[in-house]
Amino acid sequence: MNLTHIEHLGIAVKSLETAIPYYENVLGLKCYAVEEVTEQKVKTAFFKVGQTKIELLESTDPEGPVGKFIENKGEGVHHVAFAVEGLQETLDLVAEKGVRLIDKQPRKGAEGLNIAFLHPKSTFGVLTELCENPNK
Amino acid sequence: MNLTHIEHLGIAVKSLETAIPYYENVLGLKCYAVEEVTEQKVKTAFFKVGQTKIELLESTDPEGPVGKFIENKGEGVHHVAFAVEGLQETLDLVAEKGVRLIDKQPRKGAEGLNIAFLHPKSTFGVLTELCENPNK
Repeated sequence: MNLTHIEHLGIAVKSLETAIPYYENVLGLKCYAVEEVTEQKVKTAFFKVGQTKIELLESTDPEGPVGKFIENKGEGVHHVAFAVEGLQETLDLVAEKGVRLIDKQPRKGAEGLNIAFLHPKSTFGVLTELCENPNK
Repeated sequence: MNLTHIEHLGIAVKSLETAIPYYENVLGLKCYAVEEVTEQKVKTAFFKVGQTKIELLESTDPEGPVGKFIENKGEGVHHVAFAVEGLQETLDLVAEKGVRLIDKQPRKGAEGLNIAFLHPKSTFGVLTELCENPNK
């Protein structure tokens, strides 16, 4: 697998309204986008630090994946997303190696990326996203 | 605050012996160092992806910070470390802004870096480390 860098960290927060000022005023990062992803039942806010984005995730539904995560574990890092070249081949390869896939084929994610998730039961507790930029 | 990039992710695992082969054989990253940090009651294994290191943490004592983390939350991302310029000034500044510090002054961390932790109660659930390279 050719992982080039950490594309983003997904961080579950209870409220974007209270978390964004911390990221901006304390950490000094700039929020450059806020959008709702209805399919995932979240509102997101994006920041950038070096090669990596920080994606804050506020649940819009307690039964959604981020709502359940916060209920079980509290606020904190929800997933780690690696940039990869050749996403479909990579998924086939990791499945052959016995890793459980959440997505067997890439689907469209934020910012036009092709994405797929690996199951945290196969990845030592880290919900892992692989992202490919189709324009590269 | 001048955060330049994510210096590393600390990831709590139950066993380096079983987690390292996943990071090497599935994710294709190379473990370039394994060391024990007795003060923190952990054994660590280091990988690099782009600008960011991945630091796997295996507890050597159930009462240590990583042992307790795994007991409470399971395996997963334990802390996020940002590279920063001017660590002491940064700590003074974030304390003024009301952030609770675990370390009021920098201390020595792995690889000769000066480091300090911010308390996750002040950082929306993310145990946050700031790292400064004293040789830069």
